[in-house]
Amino acid sequence: MQKYLITGFSGFVSRHFLDLLESFGNPVSILGVDVRIPEFSTSQYIHVKCHFEKTDLLDRAALERTTGMFRPDFVLHLASFSSVAYSWKNPVACFANNTNIFLNLLESIRVHSLPCRILSVGSSEEYGSISEKDLPLREDSPVNPLSPYAVARVSQEMLSKVYIKGYELDIVMTRSFNHIGPGQKEIFVVPSFAKQLAAIHRSGQSHGVLTTGDTGVIRDFVDVRDVVKAYHILLQRGVKGEIYNICSGQGVTLEEVILRMAKMLSLHIDLKVDPALLRLVDNHTVVGSCEKIQNTVGWRPLIPMDQSLADILEFWKKSEGSSDV
Amino acid sequence: MQKYLITGFSGFVSRHFLDLLESFGNPVSILGVDVRIPEFSTSQYIHVKCHFEKTDLLDRAALERTTGMFRPDFVLHLASFSSVAYSWKNPVACFANNTNIFLNLLESIRVHSLPCRILSVGSSEEYGSISEKDLPLREDSPVNPLSPYAVARVSQEMLSKVYIKGYELDIVMTRSFNHIGPGQKEIFVVPSFAKQLAAIHRSGQSHGVLTTGDTGVIRDFVDVRDVVKAYHILLQRGVKGEIYNICSGQGVTLEEVILRMAKMLSLHIDLKVDPALLRLVDNHTVVGSCEKIQNTVGWRPLIPMDQSLADILEFWKKSEGSSDV
Repeated sequence: MQKYLITGFSGFVSRHFLDLLESFGNPVSILGVDVRIPEFSTSQYIHVKCHFEKTDLLDRAALERTTGMFRPDFVLHLASFSSVAYSWKNPVACFANNTNIFLNLLESIRVHSLPCRILSVGSSEEYGSISEKDLPLREDSPVNPLSPYAVARVSQEMLSKVYIKGYELDIVMTRSFNHIGPGQKEIFVVPSFAKQLAAIHRSGQSHGVLTTGDTGVIRDFVDVRDVVKAYHILLQRGVKGEIYNICSGQGVTLEEVILRMAKMLSLHIDLKVDPALLRLVDNHTVVGSCEKIQNTVGWRPLIPMDQSLADILEFWKKSEGSSDV
Repeated sequence: MQKYLITGFSGFVSRHFLDLLESFGNPVSILGVDVRIPEFSTSQYIHVKCHFEKTDLLDRAALERTTGMFRPDFVLHLASFSSVAYSWKNPVACFANNTNIFLNLLESIRVHSLPCRILSVGSSEEYGSISEKDLPLREDSPVNPLSPYAVARVSQEMLSKVYIKGYELDIVMTRSFNHIGPGQKEIFVVPSFAKQLAAIHRSGQSHGVLTTGDTGVIRDFVDVRDVVKAYHILLQRGVKGEIYNICSGQGVTLEEVILRMAKMLSLHIDLKVDPALLRLVDNHTVVGSCEKIQNTVGWRPLIPMDQSLADILEFWKKSEGSSDV
């Protein structure tokens, strides 16, 4: 039975990855680690056997014990403080909870000489300062990180390369673009909009005001259910040492995202900019090319954006009033 | 009176920097911080007033208190676990004691809105994997770090850029090539050779065997007394946000370094390779261009290598038998 170690187990990507594994119908053993207890149940799975250990990845000794005992075949490293805004507020914690935890993870695998494959999840934020001529972003485009979070992700990638060359660890890397989907926390932009829209809808009003940052920026959104398929295929067939963009290849303004969701709810929405939501430094357009992953391992995104947005709204209509998920 | 905060105060570069400041004859106030107590005295200085505080830069709260109280005009950030070999043995500690301490330093300056200039010392190791066509290395050459230490240094540089753009901190960066000079610890290659040669010389023998790694590699050595002049001039006149190579521009094999020192002591030396001293991953040739710093702020190295080597041998002839300095 194949064994997966999943870090950041309690996050929404992990949950969708478990759903995917379950859908394959083969028995797999999962050890989930996270500093937070998961708020979802895994008892509904038949093929996916989950065990959870509350673990702070900054506790290297604990992590070493865990990896040494479990001896995973695959490591899906999802753990991350992945908010750019948060990284400006607390750069030290952001850096530690991206780069230092990753280094601890690599060391915990190296010291036990585990022959596992590791998926190191990175971010489109690594590209940072982009000129129009570099669009769409390709894996060989230059990286110019613009936030503490982005620096942490580039550092993670550089550490991967050092461990591949120096210690022959089997690591495949991604640069994952903005992912969206049901279950994502509202500290991220699309669920933040969806939650506000769902609240207006629930109140019975047909007009409302949405508080936003700069909605003119263009981003490349990819559904989390497509993302986890990419992660699975890269764990199985990605090339060691290679970096893969995971993106839709399509750019859309945040304003368009809001208007599409408002239309689904038959709402008329005015946008109000909150200066506190504007980023210190930001790029106008972030759109990737998914040619490489498509041509080499055959992945491409399948879920249209309108389906993603409808599912996200559905999630927030149900979640409204409950605790943050 | 100008105030300098010097991190890594107890190291040999700091000591030479103090000598330089003293030579200018102007009163300056120094706060030195280091996790180790300095083994040198500062009582001989007339113009340089030194105060030392034992501080672990990983202790952010302590560092914040220190910078807030002292309010430096200049920060010379020398603190670093700067051994590549050590970084392979203990990547986690190496990374923390390069990147994380630097981030703590930046935060301790940012939170107090101190208008000081910071010199972020980096390393030629950042260039990493080099093709012959990239030689001599220029500041716009690509960086491909090959060791945990090198990744930590590139991360430090990326964090500098983020803090310059995002928080308008006044940071100038260096990529310092191998520096040599009296007082350097024997964990580095040239003092390690010098110590062994001085021991053979002291024993009265005219022949000896030196234990080495790969002595065919070519490096660019620059005397620490020239390096500290570069640091001083960059603190005064370097351009915010710019990176400067600090190097001699001359390549020399380690074998030639050994033979030159052996000749000074009239010794005949055989070389014995210790596989434990070979690096996991290394570059054959690392030679920099110092054109940028020469053309923009007028620094160039003045001390010929033979003088450096003679002074280093003199240091080890005196230090032999005493505790490691």
